[in-house]
Order: sequence, then C-alpha cells, then structure tokens
Amino acid sequence: MTPFPFAAIVGQDEMKTAMVLTAIDPKIGGVLVFGDRGTGKSTAVRALAALLPPIQAVAGCPCNSARPEDCPDWAQVSDTALVQRPTPVVDLPLGVSEDRVTGALDIERALTRGEKAFEAGLLARANRGYLYIDEVNLLEDHIVDLLLDVAQSGENVVEREGLSIRHAARFVLVGSGNPEEGELRPQLLDRFGLSVEVTSPKEIETRIEVIRRRDAYENDHAAFIAEWQPEDAALRERILAARAALPALQTSNVVLHDVASVCLALGSDGLRGELTLLRAARALAAYEGASEFTRDHIRRAAPMALRHRLRRDPLDDAGSTARVARQLAEVLP
Amino acid sequence: MTPFPFAAIVGQDEMKTAMVLTAIDPKIGGVLVFGDRGTGKSTAVRALAALLPPIQAVAGCPCNSARPEDCPDWAQVSDTALVQRPTPVVDLPLGVSEDRVTGALDIERALTRGEKAFEAGLLARANRGYLYIDEVNLLEDHIVDLLLDVAQSGENVVEREGLSIRHAARFVLVGSGNPEEGELRPQLLDRFGLSVEVTSPKEIETRIEVIRRRDAYENDHAAFIAEWQPEDAALRERILAARAALPALQTSNVVLHDVASVCLALGSDGLRGELTLLRAARALAAYEGASEFTRDHIRRAAPMALRHRLRRDPLDDAGSTARVARQLAEVLP
Amino acid sequence: MTPFPFAAIVGQDEMKTAMVLTAIDPKIGGVLVFGDRGTGKSTAVRALAALLPPIQAVAGCPCNSARPEDCPDWAQVSDTALVQRPTPVVDLPLGVSEDRVTGALDIERALTRGEKAFEAGLLARANRGYLYIDEVNLLEDHIVDLLLDVAQSGENVVEREGLSIRHAARFVLVGSGNPEEGELRPQLLDRFGLSVEVTSPKEIETRIEVIRRRDAYENDHAAFIAEWQPEDAALRERILAARAALPALQTSNVVLHDVASVCLALGSDGLRGELTLLRAARALAAYEGASEFTRDHIRRAAPMALRHRLRRDPLDDAGSTARVARQLAEVLP
Amino acid sequence: MTPFPFAAIVGQDEMKTAMVLTAIDPKIGGVLVFGDRGTGKSTAVRALAALLPPIQAVAGCPCNSARPEDCPDWAQVSDTALVQRPTPVVDLPLGVSEDRVTGALDIERALTRGEKAFEAGLLARANRGYLYIDEVNLLEDHIVDLLLDVAQSGENVVEREGLSIRHAARFVLVGSGNPEEGELRPQLLDRFGLSVEVTSPKEIETRIEVIRRRDAYENDHAAFIAEWQPEDAALRERILAARAALPALQTSNVVLHDVASVCLALGSDGLRGELTLLRAARALAAYEGASEFTRDHIRRAAPMALRHRLRRDPLDDAGSTARVARQLAEVLP
Amino acid sequence: MTPFPFAAIVGQDEMKTAMVLTAIDPKIGGVLVFGDRGTGKSTAVRALAALLPPIQAVAGCPCNSARPEDCPDWAQVSDTALVQRPTPVVDLPLGVSEDRVTGALDIERALTRGEKAFEAGLLARANRGYLYIDEVNLLEDHIVDLLLDVAQSGENVVEREGLSIRHAARFVLVGSGNPEEGELRPQLLDRFGLSVEVTSPKEIETRIEVIRRRDAYENDHAAFIAEWQPEDAALRERILAARAALPALQTSNVVLHDVASVCLALGSDGLRGELTLLRAARALAAYEGASEFTRDHIRRAAPMALRHRLRRDPLDDAGSTARVARQLAEVLP
Amino acid sequence: MTPFPFAAIVGQDEMKTAMVLTAIDPKIGGVLVFGDRGTGKSTAVRALAALLPPIQAVAGCPCNSARPEDCPDWAQVSDTALVQRPTPVVDLPLGVSEDRVTGALDIERALTRGEKAFEAGLLARANRGYLYIDEVNLLEDHIVDLLLDVAQSGENVVEREGLSIRHAARFVLVGSGNPEEGELRPQLLDRFGLSVEVTSPKEIETRIEVIRRRDAYENDHAAFIAEWQPEDAALRERILAARAALPALQTSNVVLHDVASVCLALGSDGLRGELTLLRAARALAAYEGASEFTRDHIRRAAPMALRHRLRRDPLDDAGSTARVARQLAEVLP
Repeated sequence: MTPFPFAAIVGQDEMKTAMVLTAIDPKIGGVLVFGDRGTGKSTAVRALAALLPPIQAVAGCPCNSARPEDCPDWAQVSDTALVQRPTPVVDLPLGVSEDRVTGALDIERALTRGEKAFEAGLLARANRGYLYIDEVNLLEDHIVDLLLDVAQSGENVVEREGLSIRHAARFVLVGSGNPEEGELRPQLLDRFGLSVEVTSPKEIETRIEVIRRRDAYENDHAAFIAEWQPEDAALRERILAARAALPALQTSNVVLHDVASVCLALGSDGLRGELTLLRAARALAAYEGASEFTRDHIRRAAPMALRHRLRRDPLDDAGSTARVARQLAEVLP
Repeated sequence: MTPFPFAAIVGQDEMKTAMVLTAIDPKIGGVLVFGDRGTGKSTAVRALAALLPPIQAVAGCPCNSARPEDCPDWAQVSDTALVQRPTPVVDLPLGVSEDRVTGALDIERALTRGEKAFEAGLLARANRGYLYIDEVNLLEDHIVDLLLDVAQSGENVVEREGLSIRHAARFVLVGSGNPEEGELRPQLLDRFGLSVEVTSPKEIETRIEVIRRRDAYENDHAAFIAEWQPEDAALRERILAARAALPALQTSNVVLHDVASVCLALGSDGLRGELTLLRAARALAAYEGASEFTRDHIRRAAPMALRHRLRRDPLDDAGSTARVARQLAEVLP
Repeated sequence: MTPFPFAAIVGQDEMKTAMVLTAIDPKIGGVLVFGDRGTGKSTAVRALAALLPPIQAVAGCPCNSARPEDCPDWAQVSDTALVQRPTPVVDLPLGVSEDRVTGALDIERALTRGEKAFEAGLLARANRGYLYIDEVNLLEDHIVDLLLDVAQSGENVVEREGLSIRHAARFVLVGSGNPEEGELRPQLLDRFGLSVEVTSPKEIETRIEVIRRRDAYENDHAAFIAEWQPEDAALRERILAARAALPALQTSNVVLHDVASVCLALGSDGLRGELTLLRAARALAAYEGASEFTRDHIRRAAPMALRHRLRRDPLDDAGSTARVARQLAEVLP
Repeated sequence: MTPFPFAAIVGQDEMKTAMVLTAIDPKIGGVLVFGDRGTGKSTAVRALAALLPPIQAVAGCPCNSARPEDCPDWAQVSDTALVQRPTPVVDLPLGVSEDRVTGALDIERALTRGEKAFEAGLLARANRGYLYIDEVNLLEDHIVDLLLDVAQSGENVVEREGLSIRHAARFVLVGSGNPEEGELRPQLLDRFGLSVEVTSPKEIETRIEVIRRRDAYENDHAAFIAEWQPEDAALRERILAARAALPALQTSNVVLHDVASVCLALGSDGLRGELTLLRAARALAAYEGASEFTRDHIRRAAPMALRHRLRRDPLDDAGSTARVARQLAEVLP
Repeated sequence: MTPFPFAAIVGQDEMKTAMVLTAIDPKIGGVLVFGDRGTGKSTAVRALAALLPPIQAVAGCPCNSARPEDCPDWAQVSDTALVQRPTPVVDLPLGVSEDRVTGALDIERALTRGEKAFEAGLLARANRGYLYIDEVNLLEDHIVDLLLDVAQSGENVVEREGLSIRHAARFVLVGSGNPEEGELRPQLLDRFGLSVEVTSPKEIETRIEVIRRRDAYENDHAAFIAEWQPEDAALRERILAARAALPALQTSNVVLHDVASVCLALGSDGLRGELTLLRAARALAAYEGASEFTRDHIRRAAPMALRHRLRRDPLDDAGSTARVARQLAEVLP
Repeated sequence: MTPFPFAAIVGQDEMKTAMVLTAIDPKIGGVLVFGDRGTGKSTAVRALAALLPPIQAVAGCPCNSARPEDCPDWAQVSDTALVQRPTPVVDLPLGVSEDRVTGALDIERALTRGEKAFEAGLLARANRGYLYIDEVNLLEDHIVDLLLDVAQSGENVVEREGLSIRHAARFVLVGSGNPEEGELRPQLLDRFGLSVEVTSPKEIETRIEVIRRRDAYENDHAAFIAEWQPEDAALRERILAARAALPALQTSNVVLHDVASVCLALGSDGLRGELTLLRAARALAAYEGASEFTRDHIRRAAPMALRHRLRRDPLDDAGSTARVARQLAEVLP
C-alpha cells in the first residue's frame, strides 16, 4: 500500500520541518520527536521517505551503493546493474541485538576459509535512507550510542578478532520518545541533532480533518494518493533545490556570533549545539530559497536545535521551549 | 469435544458484542477483556470461532491460505488441494519465545544451502482466525508489541541476517487481564481496539442457568449441542450479512464530528481512539442491519472503544466507564 | 517397603475424604493441603495410591495406557502385553524444568529424520495416578499453571516448531503448602478443586497412637501391614462402588439453587467454585452410597470446595473456614 | 595423616554424644551443630569416622557396597573382591551442583547406546559413612532438601528422561551453622534429627589442654596417636555393642506417653520431633548399656531432638535450650 | 578524512599539555579527562596521534613491532617488511569483552594441535599508540583494572589453561568521564597518572573561533589542514626533542623534598602520586627545554598529577583543584 | 626486570615481619594486609619471593615438585631433570574462575580415552611459593574459601564425576584489602593466619627515601640491585637459619598458658587464634635466634595473630590494634 502522502499530514509543522531539514543536510544528525502516542510519527517518516526521489543503487549491493565501485569489497556483488529503489526506511525493533544492527562477522568462516564473511545488518539496509526508532527511551544505551556514532560518521565499522569490515551507512535517524516514560540520558539527548514536540491537535476541525483524510486514505486509497500527488511532488522539488543551494550559502561573522551568543546564553553544554544550530539554520535558509543566511534563520532553527540541550534549572520551571524562546528574545532581539 | 455454543453463553453481552464486531471488521484490532476469573473469556473465544463458518484453505499451507497462489514462497507447499478447516483459535502460552510466535529462520540452513528454511510459528497458525492471550498483563512487553503490530498490519515479517520472510497474519487478537494484578502500560492499552469489562453474574437465577447449561454440556454433550445449534447458525448468518453490508455504509460529516468531539472531550491521546471508534460504530451499524450510520451507533460503541484510553484523572475518582458515560451524555445528548 | 496403610492414618479426616473424592471423580481437579509440617501429607498420597487397585497397562507404553490402541503414536510401543502396575504416584521435585514435566521434543531429530522424537516426562508417568507437589507455593508459577491446565483437560499437548505431541494425562494433583510461607496467587487457588487444612493432633492420646503406629510400621513391618490390610481393602471397594454409582445420581433444581446461593453469598469469583462444589458434593453422595443427592451433601462438601476461593475481607477477620461455616448456616439452614 | 583421635577431643560432650547416637541408629537422621568457628566440628566428624571399624566393600563398587550382589546394576563392577576401607567422610563443597551430589546421567549415551551411563556422585561415595556440610545455611535450599530426603530414605534415585538410576545412600549427615549468619528455614531445621550447640571453652585450663593436644598431635604425630588409641578402641566397642542391643529394647507405653507429652508441651510442629526423640532416646539407652528404655533417656535426649523445632515465641525470650529444659522439668518431673 | 589538527584546537591548554607529557614519558600512565560533553576530548586524542611521526612497524605483525625480532613468537609473521604506519589510536567500545581487549586464545586448537593459536585483541593494535575510552565510568571495573595494569607494565599477558601468551602493549591510555554521572572508585582514580578538567569555553570570541575552525575544517578540508600543518610540525619536533632530553635531566634532593612535601600536605594516599608527579614534572621540564628540573615544574605539574588523589574532606568544600592550589601556595611558596 | 630488593623497602616493619614469619613456618597460613593503596604490598611479596633461594624443581612438572617421584601421576612428566627456578609468585586476578584456580579436568577426554586429562591451574603454579590476591574483599567468597582450605591442607584435590586429581599446593597466601571498601566476613578473617596494617609513611624524610629508592631502582636499575644485594642475602640466611631452628624450640606450659589467657581475654572465637599465635610466636623466636620461646615472643606476635579475630564490641570504639594492646598489657604484664 502506498504510504500516506507527506503533504496530507495535518499540522505538526515543526516535526515536518525538522525532518525536511535533515533530508537537506543529513549532517544535522537525527531528529528526536517527543510527544503523545498516535500523533503519526512513524507515518511521517515513511511519508517523507516515499516523497523523496527513488535512489539509484547497484542491484546486488547490500548497502544500496550508488556505483559498483562503492560497494564494499566483502560484499562480492555479482549483479552490478543500476536499479531504482525507494528511499529505504528501516525500523529498528526494540530488543534488537547489536549484531543485527551492525551486521555479523562469521568469524569461523573468516578464520577457516580466509573469507570476509559478513552478513550485513540494518545499518547497511538503511544506507541512503531513514532509520526509525519508536520509543528510543526503551532502547538499550549501547545500541543508541552505536547508532548515533554511525549516523555522525556515516560509516559502519565492525571489528572482531583483528578483522575489520566497513561500509557506508549514511541515514537520517528519527527517534520518538514519550517524556512521561522516563528521561533520556543527557549524553543521548546531546547527540541528536534536532528535537521537536508533537501533541494531539486540540481543535475539533483539525481532528475531523485528520480522521477524514485517514478514513479516505484507507477506504479510497487510489483516489486519495492521486489527489495529494502534486503537493508531494512540489515538496520534493523544493528539497532537491535546497540541497543544491546549500554549499553556496555564506556564513557571516554575524551569524557565527549569533550562534555562539544564543548557546552561551542558554548554557548548552559543549559545542555540538552550536554546530547543529549552524547547520540547521543554514538548511532552513536553503529550504526557504533565501539568498542570504541570516539571524532570522538562526532564530527559527534554535528551538529545534537547542531545546533538548538545556541543563535542568531547578529555579526555572518554565519548559525548555519557553526558556529557549525567552533567551532568543533577549539575545537576538 | 465440540466447543460450548456461543449462543448458550449466559449474559456477558458487551463482551460478546465486542467479539462479534471484530469478527465483522478485523481492522478494529483486538479486544481486551478485563474481569474476574472464571467468567468464561476463553470459552467465549472458542465458541465464537466455532460459530463462524469453516474457512477454505490450501491443505499444505502453514498459514491457512485461501488460494495456492497466496501461500508464501518459502513454504514449498506440495499439497495444494483446498480443504475445509474450522476457524483457527490459537492460544498464546505465557512465557512463549519470540521465535515460537513469529516462526524461526534456520539461518544455518539458509546460508549453507541457500534455502529459506523457515519453521512457521503461532502467527501463521492463527491466520484467518483468533489469537487468545490469557492474562495479557503477564506477557512480556516485546511479545505484546509484536502481536499488536502484526495484528494491525496483517503481515508477519521476520528479518534475520539479511533474509526476509513474510506471510499473511490476519487474526482477531483477544486478551484477558485482571486489573487487580498490575496495570497495563498506556501504550499497550492504546493499541487494543476495544475493551470490555466482565463480572460474575450477581443474580442467582443467572448463576443457576450458567451451572445448569455447563452441567448439561458436560453430562449430555450431544443433546446440548443440538439444542443450541439453530441459535448459533442464526448468529453466523447475521455476522456474514454485516460483513457484506459494511462497505456500503456512508460516513457523514455529522458522524465524523461526533467522533472527534467525544474523543476531544475525553482527552484520549492520539488518533487511534477516533479511528477505532469510527470503525467499531460502523461495524455495529452493519451488525444491526441499519441503513444509516448514526450518532446512536457512535454513542453505543464509544464505551468499548474509549474506556481504556482515558488518562488517569486524580481529581475524578469515577471509574472509566462512568467517565465515558458522563461525557457521552454531555457531548452527544 | 510397602507404603503405610491409608486406613492406619490417625485422624485427618477432611484430608482423607478430599483425596477419596478426587479418586471417585478426578474432574474435581486436585487437592491443596494447607498445614503444619510433619502431618503426613506425602504419606497419605502414597497410602491412597497403594490402596487403589493396580491398573492394567500396556507394558511398553510410556503413559500407562490401558489398551495398545490408546498408546500415543510417537511412542513406538513394541511390547504391547498388558501388565498389572500399582497406581502411579509421581513426585514433582522443586526446580523441575518444564521439559521434564511435559516431556521434551528432540527437534533436531524431528527435522532431520522426520521422526516424532519425544522423551516422555513426568506427566506421562503420572497418567492414571497421582502427582504430588510438596510446597506448591515454592514451585514456579508457569509450572503450576501448566499442571493445573493438564489436570483439567486430561491431556498433555507439547507444541514446538509446528510439531504437536499429545498423550493422555489424567491424574489427581495433590499439592501441599504452608500458609505461613507466602501466599498463593488467587488464580492458582481458584484452579485447585478442593482445599483442606491439617494440623498436628492436639490430644495426647491421638499423638501416642500416631507414634505407636508409625513405630510398629517401621519395627514390625510385615505384621503391621497385615493387620491393616482388611480395612484398606474395604475402603477400596467403597471407592470403586462410588465410581460406579456416580453417573446415576440426579441433580435436582434445589441442589443447583443451593450451590449458586452458597457461592453468591460467599462472593467467590467466577464459576469454577460452583462447578467444583457440584462435583464434590455429588461424589460425596456416591461415596456414602446415598440414593439421592441432597442439600446435606452440598453443605458438607462446601468447606473443601470454597474455602480457598473467598476474597480477602479486611472487615472480617474470621478465618475462611469460619466464614464458609457462617454463610452455610445462613444460606442452607 | 591419621585424623585427630575422637577421644582426644576436649569437652564438647553434647556434640560428641549426638554424633555417636547417629552412628548407633542412622535413622535418627543427621546432626546440626550450631556454634562458634574453630570449635572443631569438622575435626569431630573425621575423628568419629576414623574411630569406627573399617567397612568391608566391593573393590570396584562406586557406592561401597558390602556384597557384590548389592552393587547397582549400572555400575558394571568388574573387580568384585572385598576390601577394607575406612568409613568414608565426604565433604560437600559450597556451590556444589545437583549433578555432582546425586551423580549425573549421560543422557546422550543412554539414548544412543542404550546404556545406563551414570557417573556416581558424592552421595554414592558417602554411602555407609558421613557427609559433612560446613555452613549449611550457605548451601542452596534445593541441595539441602535433596540431602535430607536421601538421608531419610537411604536411597538415591536419579530420574531423567524416563531413565531411573538407584543406589543405596545411607550416611550420617552432619551440618554446621552459625546462628549469627542468617536463620535456617523452619522446614530445614525440622528435617535434621538432632541439633547441638557448641561454644569455645571458657576455662583457661580447658583451652590450654586443647592447644596442648593439638600441638602434640601436629608436632609429635605418631606418639600422640598411639597414646589415644586405647580410648578410641574402647569407644568403638561400645558403639558396636549399642548397635547390637538396639532392637531388643522395648518401648513402653509410658515412654510413648512421655514423648508425646513433651512434644505437645513444646508445641513442636508435626510428628518428626516425636519420632526422632523416640529413636534418639532409645539409642542413648543402648549406648549406656541400659537394660530398660526409660523416662530418663527421654529427658536427656530431648534437648538434642527438640531444641530446633520450637516455634519462635515472641513473649518468651529465653533461648530454645532453656525453654526445652523448663518444659521438661514440668512435664517429666 | 585527515584528523583535526592538534594545534588548531582552541584553548583546553591543560588537557593538551597532559596529553603531550604522556607522549614524552608514557610511564606517566594515562590521562583522565573530566568534563562537559562536546569539549573535543576524542578529537584531541586523534589529533595528537596524527601529529606524532608515523611509526615504523613490521608489516605482518599484529602488535606493530618495530623489528621482526620483537614480533611475538605466536604471531607467525610472514611479511617482515618494515612499513610506515600512523600512530595507532584504538577506541575501546563500551561493553567490550575481556577477550576482545586482551585477545583470545583458541584453547581447543592449542590442545589438539599444539599451536599457540591466539587472536590478538585491541591491546595489540594499540601498542605504540593510544587507547581511548569514552565515559570510563561506564566501563566494567575488571576491564579498567586490566587496562591500567597493562598500561603500567607495558606488556599484555594472557594465561589460560597453562598456556601463556605475551606481547608488548605500550600505549597512552586516555579516558574521559563526567563527574556528574557517578563517581569513579578511588582505586581507579589512583591508577591514572594525570587528570585534567575541561569545560566549554565561556567567552563568546573563543566559542566563535571554535565554530569557525570546525566549520572551516568541514567545509574546506584541504585548505584548513594545510594552514595548520606548520604549527603541528613544530609541536611534533618539540615533543621529539623532549623525549631525547628526558634521561639527562637530574633530579635534585630539593625536587624530591618538594614532591614529598606536597603529597604529604595533600594527604594523597600511597606513593603513586609522588612517582607520577616526579615523572610529569620532569617531562614538563623536558618539554619546555629547561636545562634544570626545578620546583617550578613541580608546582605546575602538581594539579594534573594530584587533583584526583585527594581524599574527600567533608569539612572542606572547595573543589579539588582549589585545594591543590592552596596547598601548593603554602608548601612550595 | 629484577624485582625491588626486599631490604630496600622503607619502613612497613610489621608487614615485612609477618611475611618473613610465614616464610619460616608456612603453617601459619597466610597474611592479610590492610591498608592504603600504593603502600607497596604487591612489591613486598615479589621482593620476598626474589629474596628466597631458588627452588630446585623437576623441569617438566606442573607443580614444581622437588623430586620426580613427587610429581603427580596425571602429569605425565617427560623431562625429569632438576632445574633451578625462582620461588614462584602467582597473582590471582579478580574474576578468576574456579577452574583456572584449581585446574580443570577434561571430563570428556577422561571418559572417552580413560586418561586423567588435567590442565593444572594457578594453585599448581604457586606450589612452593606465594599466591598474591590484591583486594581480597572483591574476590568471590567461594574462591577465597577454596584458597584458604588448600593453603591449610597443602593439597589441591579436584573431584569431578568420580575422578579425583591431587597435587601438592603449599604456598604462602598474601591478600590485601582496604577496610574502607566493605568488610570481610568474620569466617574469612578467621582463616587468615596473620593480619597487618600498613599506612603511607607520614614523615617527609621517609617519603623522600621511598621516592629516591624507587627512582634509583627505575633509573639506574643494575646499580641499585647491586647496592642492596648484600642486605638481601643476609636476610635470606637468617630465614633459612630460623627454618632450621624451629623444630628444636620447646613450648613451655607457661607459654601455653599465656596464649590461652590472651585469647580468652580478647574473646577471640574458636581455637584458630590460639594455634596461630603459638606458631607465629615460635617462628618469631626462631627468626630472632632466641634459645628459648618466651612470653615476650607471644606478646609481640599477638597483634598480628589476633587483631582480625576480635568480635566487634559496640561499647568499645577503640580500634582492634588498641584493644589487643590493652589486653596484652593486662594479661601479660
């Protein structure tokens, strides 16, 4: 069944923008979606992936390489034809083993036959696509660390017994979590690029629209897909244009100063916040087709990039979104 | 021994209606039965399955496919004759392993001989039937998540080491739980379509009737089955008629508005509640042979569809059934 | 060494009656004996089994089948001669594994040679006899559930990897527990048919008689056994007569009304209490050679059948035996 | 090195008597020694075993059978010559596995070759001797239960997968425990026949004597052993005489009444206390060469037999030894 | 991608100095870096390793030996050519097994074929380089103990079943930890040579400079590397010169007295603090090209060498850095 | 690298004396060293072992037997030449398995080929030498129990599946522990012969001397070793002389009385304290070349032998060393 059209998702603008930004610059490094159940997080990931152009990949390559020469040497790809594939979306099941995520080396075969016998894992399948984790707060820490490391480096390296296997693993990581079910470790939060908050819509007309569209999608599938196809196509073009425009956007000293000032004022730990804010704001500028990368882009990208990096302040019981907004108003008036 | 006749179950009307509704539209997604021990939950599931017409299935297919071409490719079905089988009822034992539920891939055979060596699991056996879990609150979370996911998607996908096995797994999931023995996680509750409450009958005449029927069933089996056969047959026809009528029932804007209003008033999280209420009420209309799908159907389906989705409200110590009733009276007078 | 004669057990009449009743109608479903250590629970089970007539069984059958055609197909019985065997008594050791209880399938052999390679377990050995569990409150829940299910259905079904092994497993389950060492889960209690309480005798003459008999049994074994043989034989005949008389006893509406009234008054959950009380009272009538099944039998069987099914009542600190007695006096005067 | 002579143990008379009684009548069932570290519990067991006459055993038999025809069938004994062996003393290491205690069946060999392949365990080696457990309160419950059962039945039965292995396992079980390090479960206490309390001697002359003897034993081994040989030999004769006299001692009604009265007054649970007291007092009478078994023997054996069977009484903070003494003074004046 | 230039790291002077000192004298024994996330700890290690001259190593040697005769005998090196390799940097993943760290002996092969079959581990790969552990407080204690022992002895010894495997394992151990996430055991702290604290820069100009450099490094990689190459080269020369100068630096009695006085005043446990301080200060003198090793070097190395060895003083709530500074001011004015 | 000279260890006289005493009479049974980290415990053990004369051992014997006829039968020693070996020092790693300590029986080989296939463990390697455990309080109890038992009996007995392997295992056990990190169980304490307390030196000159010697040892190894060789040699001669003198020292009644009086006054449990004190004081007399074994030797050995055997006294908060001293002053004035 064709996924639900991205454009047909009602509301949830911040989540949709964050996902689009990471589609423009995957170095932003993942989106963490906080919020109620049933707000369509999984639907949105699948919708975005379906919206993007198919990728061209080597037919026999386990990690969707674009060219035969990019296929890892251990893969022994026999079918090197180029084929079209939908942008991959990989679900990470809870309780997944590390071997299944990274792929598993068959040590015995390696030692006895001297072959690099590697069964590729979920990271290979997610290359050039999306990796979605529902309820990231229930995933074991070492798996999440592993995922964020790979998401940042773009490469999966499996080392066992002196053997070393590598392959490209560039993907947008999307995680969902419910803040009511236990907090995430600060280190973990820090390693997600962006975070957004989603809630169930409160206006009855919005809710009716959601049910109506969902009902139409299920009851009259083909017509519904056809109705939304043009909006999805337009969005796809805009994302591709932004990707193309990104390298040319200059980063002025003013912008750098703004980025540092906001992060300093918010007391966000380390430098990851600053680099992410820089990248997200630049991607936002590109997405909006701006000719210049300005303070306004910083200001609008800041909540997504910084909200989850604040230290808890026992004297300030405003939520983190409110605290970011207040500081922005002061520092970047 | 022939199961107890569905029609001979004394009382417990809400439970029986909920089970019938999911038999009409399996997309409603499972029934959770709360209540005392010994109230015949397991008996009811078996009785409903026995009531339904036998399914026609490929003799050698591990997942009861209706046509040889629907059998999964890994099954290597040699006997493709069509045979009649009772609607399957599968019990999920406590402590069951994930492999036994989903089926297990024989990786070694897969790698050494290149065969998709798959031992089908309980999900395959439950296809086109019922899956019953007694004391769902004692089942491990990851198994329940897995079950609800499959129940929703209608497909069981087993992925290991780059191999991917699929088969249809469409079933009505019925779980029972005793609220006095530990709460269910809100996510879990949210993913069951309907919930009902059952209690031991309090009137002595009802209890005598229950014992009398049970005693007759055991002491004079054949006569008892024969006595109730006509009522069961009538019920079967009504269910089949409702299945046929369902697609033609129109969903008016008023009905959509009612659904959204009730859910908003009750503050149920996410959109699953709305979609389930819509489907359950529509199935109820079909079951009752209504020519129109109206507010009255919404009103009557709402307790089953929403009762288990309320947030706990510390200022309101009415039970959830009472809270649903109160809101319904206000919102849909 | 010949077991201690059942008839020579001093006092403990309720325990002895309960065991005898389940010997008359095994559908009553097990006896739970609460009480002090050293009160001869294990001795009583062994004594009762030794009292009963030997069973006639197929020599090579792992589950004591009465006729060659009843032997399970997987057993490949070569010696089909009929032999006399004492009624089996099987002890369930604490910490026993599920495989040892149910028997274990040799999956590998099954898959590679296509044989149903099954090593029968304790349930097979207990068929047509007794299964005794000392300190049932220390047994793992899943083992007890399994035992009670099999005791109720009379069949042991082992399902693994799509294979299904069955054999008859009809036995009287006897468990002992010390209420001072942790409570049993209500579900567990509910699934035992009868419960009795035993205590160390308080009268000195009784105690002297116990020691004297035990000392005689050990010091002058043959003479002691010979002395009690006639009483044991008479009891055996009476049990066999009751088994024969059971089907002919009619269940009047008055009796059904009495059963329901008592259970309702006591607030026992579910319907298992009612069915058990009906069966136990009927077996009692048969044991006493009554021509009619009356209120008096209900009244006397009720404590055994209901005592362990009461909900705890924080406002009533009478013991459960006293509460049953009080309600009986009111409801069935 | 020859063990320390039993007769050279300074003081600790109750412990020595209890051990001697169980050597006379092993059915008494084990001694539990409570007390300080370094009071020579392990030394005493070894000393007693060395004191007893060597046993005559079949050379190749794993369980020290006295006659070739007593060797278990699975042992395939090839060397059936009779040899002299010291009375065995087996130490049960903490953390020992059940297989090592009971012996282990080689199921695979059993199934593939049809042999009863059994590796005998510690219980076989302890047959006809002593089994010593230091710090019994640190041993896992299921191991202790197993040991006490075997000690009582005199037979080790290993049942796995339908195979059944048996061999005689008659031994005196001696356990030590420090009441300051956690209590023993009442069931466990109840299943030891006797208990004694040992303390470090408080008189300086006693302590000097202990050190002097121990120093002499280590510094001038041969001379020390020779010095004590006559006393050990005399003790050995006395034990052998008591064993011979035991069956002829009559148990009068008065004695039975005394036993029951004391146990009833002390409220000891169950009947094990009574039977043990009867046996221990009778063995004491035999040990002392008494021509009659009298109240005096009961009175003196009672502390050892009953001390560990008292229920805790929160209103009586006298130690259990004092409570036994007080009741004895009242009941058997 | 070429690592970030060491010289281009903005600020963090203490961390950089500590790393450089251990590069001059690896006997100092590891650096523990406390501090905020995102402060570039991992970047710094990689940068320093990339700065150092490549090592010359035997091509086929698993532990980077400098000469064929240094290769361990078990390695069976066939390719003995000398090749240039970058100074190794090995990451120790959380949850790593002991076998993977130390290498694993294939016991079976050893026993059956008499070969020393050893799969070298991470310690072999780290020889002559760096071993980096992020979040050392999350690593299991036995792994950290093992690492610190090897780092101190310079040799990895694996002993199993009487076989003994050895190889050189000289590396600089760098660990990072966040004091807010649980304390390190005092023994562990004591076994790190130096510790430093890093924080996010607080001055906006510094932060801008950090972002600017990082952005330049990523956006214009080649130019940025070229720009910083000369500074890195100069630093490399200085380290090499210090290594050469180290043996000639005399340790005067005054210096020894200073070392002992400071440690005594600070109450640091044991003698490891004194030896480390001596070595670190001597390396600092060499690094600065000093002709004499003086009190000033002691004074400046003391915070790094002693900060993590103070006992907690409940009456002094100054941080450990402040306490070291205060004592230094008093003791070495 | 030659170990640090024993004579060059600055201070720590009690620790050095205790170690020397156990070298004179290994029956004293182990030294437990309490104290600060970095006080050279491990250095001292290695130094003492290096000081002692090399042992003469059979080249191919796994347990360093002095004569070919002493090699265990299972060892199948082919090279029986006598060679000189340094006194062994074996480190017991934390987390070591029981098999690695005791050696492991290859049961399968034993059963299939009838060979006593035993891989000797650390206990075999430690025979005739030292076994050192750092942080004994972190070792699992069953390992420590095992070690102390073997240390006391001088023999390692491994029993599995009816096979029994033995070899001599006579060694001095040295353990270190930090009382701040959790207490040792009283049983454990009691089974160490001696205990000493070490602290970092508090005088600056002592500390300087420690650093100076350590620095000299590392910077000018050969010269330092040569400088201290004469003192080490003298100490070696003295130990050998004491070993020779020990058997001739008479133990008077007065001395026995003193030993018992002190232990009684201190309330030390059991008799192990008395025997150890006797042995340690006698070894001290021998070490000092005394012609008579007197009260003075008792007085000086008592702190080492008894300090760790006191019961905790809540009314006396003096440390155990002070309590021993006070009692000594009273009892042996």
